[in-house]
Order: sequence, then C-alpha cells, then structure tokens
Amino acid sequence: MYKSLVRGGWWGWMWQSPPMSYQPPMSNDEFRRAGHEMIDWIADYWERVETLPVLSQVEPGDVRASLPAAPPQSGEAWSDIMADVDEFIVPGITHWQSPNFFAYFPANASPPSVLGELMSAGLGVQGMLWATSPACTELETLMMDWMIDLCGLPDRFLSSGAGGGVIQDSASSGALVAILAARERTAGQYRWEELVAYSSEHAHSSMIKGCRIAGLMESQIRAIPSDETHAMDPAALRQAMIDDISEGRRPFFVQATSGTTSSTAFDPVDAIADVCKEFVAWLHVDGAFAGSAAVAPEFRFVNAGLERADSYTFNPHKWLLTNFDCSMFYVADRQPMIAALSVLPEYLRNAASDAGDVVDYRDWQIPLGRRFRALKLWFVIRTHGAEGLANFVRSHVEMAKDFHARIEAHPQFEIVAPTTLSLVTFRHTGGDADNERIRDAINNGGEAYITHTKLNDQTVLRLAIGAVRTEQRHIDGVYSLLAALA
Amino acid sequence: MYKSLVRGGWWGWMWQSPPMSYQPPMSNDEFRRAGHEMIDWIADYWERVETLPVLSQVEPGDVRASLPAAPPQSGEAWSDIMADVDEFIVPGITHWQSPNFFAYFPANASPPSVLGELMSAGLGVQGMLWATSPACTELETLMMDWMIDLCGLPDRFLSSGAGGGVIQDSASSGALVAILAARERTAGQYRWEELVAYSSEHAHSSMIKGCRIAGLMESQIRAIPSDETHAMDPAALRQAMIDDISEGRRPFFVQATSGTTSSTAFDPVDAIADVCKEFVAWLHVDGAFAGSAAVAPEFRFVNAGLERADSYTFNPHKWLLTNFDCSMFYVADRQPMIAALSVLPEYLRNAASDAGDVVDYRDWQIPLGRRFRALKLWFVIRTHGAEGLANFVRSHVEMAKDFHARIEAHPQFEIVAPTTLSLVTFRHTGGDADNERIRDAINNGGEAYITHTKLNDQTVLRLAIGAVRTEQRHIDGVYSLLAALA
Repeated sequence: MYKSLVRGGWWGWMWQSPPMSYQPPMSNDEFRRAGHEMIDWIADYWERVETLPVLSQVEPGDVRASLPAAPPQSGEAWSDIMADVDEFIVPGITHWQSPNFFAYFPANASPPSVLGELMSAGLGVQGMLWATSPACTELETLMMDWMIDLCGLPDRFLSSGAGGGVIQDSASSGALVAILAARERTAGQYRWEELVAYSSEHAHSSMIKGCRIAGLMESQIRAIPSDETHAMDPAALRQAMIDDISEGRRPFFVQATSGTTSSTAFDPVDAIADVCKEFVAWLHVDGAFAGSAAVAPEFRFVNAGLERADSYTFNPHKWLLTNFDCSMFYVADRQPMIAALSVLPEYLRNAASDAGDVVDYRDWQIPLGRRFRALKLWFVIRTHGAEGLANFVRSHVEMAKDFHARIEAHPQFEIVAPTTLSLVTFRHTGGDADNERIRDAINNGGEAYITHTKLNDQTVLRLAIGAVRTEQRHIDGVYSLLAALA
Repeated sequence: MYKSLVRGGWWGWMWQSPPMSYQPPMSNDEFRRAGHEMIDWIADYWERVETLPVLSQVEPGDVRASLPAAPPQSGEAWSDIMADVDEFIVPGITHWQSPNFFAYFPANASPPSVLGELMSAGLGVQGMLWATSPACTELETLMMDWMIDLCGLPDRFLSSGAGGGVIQDSASSGALVAILAARERTAGQYRWEELVAYSSEHAHSSMIKGCRIAGLMESQIRAIPSDETHAMDPAALRQAMIDDISEGRRPFFVQATSGTTSSTAFDPVDAIADVCKEFVAWLHVDGAFAGSAAVAPEFRFVNAGLERADSYTFNPHKWLLTNFDCSMFYVADRQPMIAALSVLPEYLRNAASDAGDVVDYRDWQIPLGRRFRALKLWFVIRTHGAEGLANFVRSHVEMAKDFHARIEAHPQFEIVAPTTLSLVTFRHTGGDADNERIRDAINNGGEAYITHTKLNDQTVLRLAIGAVRTEQRHIDGVYSLLAALA
C-alpha cells in the first residue's frame, strides 16, 4: 500500500540491502583498557598542565591543517587516535585547568566532577521527563535544594514551595528563561513590543543576547549607569522606567548583577527590588561567578536582596568545582516559566506527567533533551562537604587579598575597582598601551593567561583567581611576571 | 578608598577570615583508582543493563526520599557514594542504553563517545571563542565538514563557503537558531509581529517552542495538514501562505521534517523549497533522527532537497553512536545567524577575533559557553570509519524490516505508517484501549520500553530500533511479548 505514496524509492531497502551485522570497533573489554588509559591520561595531564603554555600558541588554521581533510573509510586503531590527541590537539588547547589560568572566570573541573560527567555519559540517560529517568530529575531537584542550604539562599527557591530550581547549561540560558517567564507574566496585559528590559552598563552580554533572542528590539533594552564601584545606580533605573512609561512603554524585566564580569561589582539588589516592586517588573539576579562564594558564610553578602528576586542564577561550573556545564537557576514562582516553555505533544505524554505528580524539567529550559548533570554536583558536594566547599573559595579569596596588597604597593600599578572576592582588577599607570603590552607579553609567553576589560574608558587588567589547582606559588609567579614587565 | 562605597561590609574579609588552605578530597592518585573503578562500573553496567527493568519502576518521590534531605557538613568516602549510586540511583534510572529500549528515539552512548566525553571533561575547555581553545573550534569545524562527506550533504554547508556547521546541544536549539536567523534576514523589511512560521502538523514540538521563545504568538504559527504518509502537503503550505499574505502577514520560516517523530515520515523538501522560494521564506530541515541514516549511501533519500535548504539539523546523539549532546546544525549562509546572535563586550575581545581570521562559535548558539563536544564525534568516526557507521544504521534497518514483516503478518496487528528506516509504527486492531493496555503491560513488566503516539486520531505504538547494543534477539523478544499480549 505505502510504496506508491513515498518519494525517493525508500522502499527499495526492503529488497536491496544485504543483511549487515554491526561489529563494534571497541568491545567492552577494550573499553576497560582504553578507559583506564584515558583516566591516567587525564591525571597525567593535570600533573603536567602547569608546564604547558596556558594560552595556546597556535595560529588560526594550524590544528585543522594537521588533520586529514576527509574521514577514514575504515576504523582506525585507538592508539593512533590517542597519539594524534597528544600531537595535534593538546598544542591547540588553551588550558583552562592550568593553575596559571587567570583569564575570564575559571571553569572548574575537579576530579569528582569529572567522574560524575563520566558516569552520566556511561548511563546515557536523557532526562527530559521525570519518566525518562526519575533519578535524573529527583537528584537534580534535591541538589538544587541542597544548594539553598549550602549557600544560605532564600526559602522561596525551595522545590517544596511555589518556586524551585533546575540545572541550566549556562547563566546565559538562565537569563533567557527568566526573560521568557517575565514576558509570559505580562501576557494579556501588554503588547510585547511595548516591553522594556533593564540592566546595568556592566551587566553580562547574555542579558542583551537573551532579550534579542526573545524578540526585543535594541530600543527595548536599557543599560543603566553605574556608580564609582561600577554598581547599578537604582535612582537612574527608576528614572529610566518613569521615562519609558511616559512614552507608553512597559518596564517588565530587570537584571541585577551580583558580581559583574569586569570587576565583580555588586548591584544594590535590595534598592533595585524596590524599583521593581513599584513598577511590577521581574527581578532576575545574575550571580554567575560570585554566587558560589556563599558556600562560605562570611561571604553571604553576595546573596543580599535575593529574598526579593523572582529568579537567580549562579554557576558551580565557574567556581564550585563542577565541570562545565552546571548552572543553578532558581525561580520564586515556576508557573510563568512553565507556561512560557511547555508544549506537550502526544508522543511525550505519560501517566506520571498527566497526573501532575512530577517535575518535567523539559519545561524549565530551552532544549527538550537533557543530561544527568546532577550526578557531578552530587559527587562534588559529597566528597567535599560544606566545609570543603567553603575552604575552596576561601583559599582563592586569600590569594586575591595577597595579590591585591602587592599590586596596591607597587609604584607602577594601581587597583581600579574594589576586590570583592577573588577577581583583582588593576592597571599599569602608564596608559592603555602599556596595559595591552603587559597582557600580551604574559599571554604570549605562555606562563600565565590574563584578560582585560574597560572601566571608565580605560583598558584594565583582570586577574581572576579560582582554578582548582591554583596555589599561592602561582600567584607569586604571575606577580613576578607583572612586576618584571612594569 | 573603596571601603565606604561598598554595601554589606564585604571589605571585612580583609581582616576577619583566617588563612585557610584547600585540601582536595580526591588526590590525583585517588582519581586514578576511582576512575579505573568508574570505567569498570560502566562496562559492568553495559553488560548487565539488559537484565534491568528498562522503564524505572520507582514511584514519584522514591529516589529523593531515599537520600539525605541536607548536604553533608564534612566530606564523605568515595566508596559510600558509589554504594549509594548502586542502591538508590540505579533503580531510578530508565535505561536508555538497554538493548530493549525502543521508546522515543534512541540516545546512543557508544564506548568511544563516552571516552570522548571523559576527555572533554578532563581537559575542561570552554570553547566560546577560537582563542579560548583553538583545537575546540577547529576540530569542530572539521567534524562538521567530515560529516558532509560521510552523509553526502550539499557542499553549501561546507565551512569553506558562505555557510558552515556547528554542534548544538539539541535539534530544538538548532531550530531556534534557524528561526532567529530567518527573523534577522527580514530585519528592516517587516515588523516582527507580522511574521508567520509554518511546519507540518507532525513536526516536532521544538518548532512551536522555538517560535514562542523568539516571541511569536500562537497566531503566527501554522500547522500544515499532511497526506496519507503523514508528510506535509506542499499545496496546503502554499495556500496557507497566500491566505496569510492576503491578510497582511509575512511568511518567513518553514520547517520541513525529514523523518517525523511519530512515524519517520518525510516531508517533500523539494516541493516545499519551491514554495519557500516563491515567498522568500527560510527553509529549515529537521532530520533529527533520520539524518544519521545518510552514512549508508543507500539511505541518502533522507537528504532529498537539502541542496535547497537554508539550514539543516540532525542528531548523532540519537542514532550515530555519540552520546547526548551532539546535534549537527548547518546553515547555507552564516551571516544572518551571526548578526542575530553576536554581542561583543570588551572582555571577550581578542586579536584573533578582531582580525576576522577565526570562527567564534559563541555567535552560532544560544549560550555563551560551550564544551569540547567535537572530541567524542572524532573518536566515534575514527574508530568506526565510514563503513562501520554505515553498518551500524544498516543493522537497525534490517531489524526493523524483520519486525515490520512479522507485525504485518500477525492477525491482530497492523502497520499504520510506512517503515522508512528503523521506526515501526503499528497498532492492535482492537482499538485505543487495547494499544494502551499492551504498551503499559510491556513497560510495567520491565522487559522492554515502547512509547505511543497518535496518528489519524488513533493511539498507535512505536518501536524505535537504534540502541547501541540492540541485536536481533532483542527484536525477537519484544515481538514475542507483543504477540503474547495480542
């Protein structure tokens, strides 16, 4: 019956193709051998990564040119593949796991988290629905609740209430989900092209990207001026909203940043919350890097005002020992988010979801599919305990304190923003060209990797401390490099 | 200077906290031991997964209730954690790696891909920019080009031209990126609230979700009727566009599906491309599951019409031996996508990007951060070779052919849609209740896992063949179960 209906002669396979059996090129026993070798390769890598140039020194096209232009016709030996990794891939790596990596923010890959990622890959679970692996969903919900305990976050984010948490791939995606939930909350009241979103001029670029994805035009996105600490000025925020309303627009979303990318400045979340309340705007707080510091009680200033936030995100994959990707995203009310993101086709229906007894995390994120990311967080938290996590962030803050003091004492350098945690933002007093020269000399030499930003229209250097293997001697080393270049 | 400027007394740490040293709870040597054990645990799991109930038999809340409500204060022993995995996590797993998993579509986790995921986690690279690990970007570009060779895809997707490819986390995200690029292409010509998107009534729900994320209202999304094979009717598509234009709307995006979720039906991409050309709409082709079949030349009918598509996606994490997430996404012209997604703050600027010599994949996706996913694909392709990949999909199509014939010959079952590849869609002739009874009996018994869908308003069963370890004897087994329940 169907043969005539289908284009392209697909039905031909019923007769043409001979029975073929699939021979896995790697048996389970071979996997054991190659897997043990891979574990040792990684442990060896971590031991020698300190000796490798942090910023890869290859030129554009070098890596690709070293590899065959076409895929192999037949399978190749595992040993040949591993040899190629060492010869062609490793030189093209910028080593985020180097203890001398001080660029951007860190990307922590600790041993227990890597084992969690490995187990997740081996189980090969796809947790889009509760039913497609209950443990994937329930361990994730528990880890989100545990993190509230570990960081002293507000109870409104607990899964037992109207809110809850989910692991996103990144704070960018969390910001986008928050924007979508905020927009959904205005449905039926405002036309979407009237909506306006706000963040400080120092907010992460993900805010603008998220707004653009959600269909906002540039004219619907505001960058609010900041004060001397590079924190958002809430009076300026309020005035911007008043101006927008007077022109027929509708403030609907504010992103406050707890720890900006350029200098870990803290927007005054409580004062911003007052403004959000006055104008009924969604308050999203981005603590992507700094939020992890709250595992140490003395750093809980990073949570200031969160009890009034509609949503909050921070990244254990930056500074809490858990390899990328693992971003915590909380909402105080999960309903507008689910209303924004839930589409239920027949092929995903199941008894547990229909009964409303379970969480289906597909409705809390942009993609449908999802990995079992809670495993790695569980492994990290259990192996460290609350004390171990706290000591981890404390160790970096101590190193930053030391580095800050030495930069402050150096005649040619100056601190340009408050060192609130473990990022030190500073500059050579000689001007932008000197700072660029110093940055390039360090990075091109391979001994360390630092990045720059702009503050008050000046090029400034950032030393972000937080890699898993960074010790005081690495701070001593990069300081000596800087001093020699000054 | 800064002390008085900063809220919350953060400066207090300069004086209060005692020097704390971080003691990693797992040394490199302990990682080697625990890692070897984990590799063996996974190999053991793959050997015994066939004996476990495929669909987890736990009730909502069971997994969580078995675990401590609060995180530990001090670190715990690794052996205790692994014991808890076996006792509390494994029973809550729905085993996607079981050879008796026939639900949804498969999620392939082959041994070499798991080793690639492991290496990626160990390297801990964040490839948002070329500079942040050139190998991460360049190997990915090469793999995207290799896949064009392996699958016989159009040259317009090659990185050497105006287009190119990127690994997304999922086809959902790929669809969203395509929608955003298509919308960007209309910028300055149309108001976004005039735009209309189209797909068949059998398109994946990700199309609707993507449109909603991008800010389209329900009134801007059309489900086009399908023909007897459940493929989109291009005449109905054309008429819908004419109707929309007559009412002042602007057709801007069409998603054609090569292999629908319900029945792997193939929309007539070439005829749809004619309509898209006539009305200047972006043509995105979703081959999420079926696209992998093109590694076998005799199945390249799945690529029909792609030489006219603006974008295309398919998922090696479904049916090409690469663990989730690994979704191929191609565009014929990368400019509108980059225009839609690029936001360049100062702290991400670098010489290579500024010079325009490199690809920065952050501008090809929703999040900023990204893992080194190309490694696992490289390992899969090199260990298998083109021949091995082809034999893998062939083996499943052969099994589907056998199952199809047996269902067709059974007096109480009937085939309800063409078996185009390795998904067989069928039903018991007794009616919806009988089909639901059979589905539940199989799933609750734990011997196999199948899912249902609706076609022509009837509940039908889906047997999706494609797990890495599925052999003919597993097809024999699930057929026997079905026959006994008929």
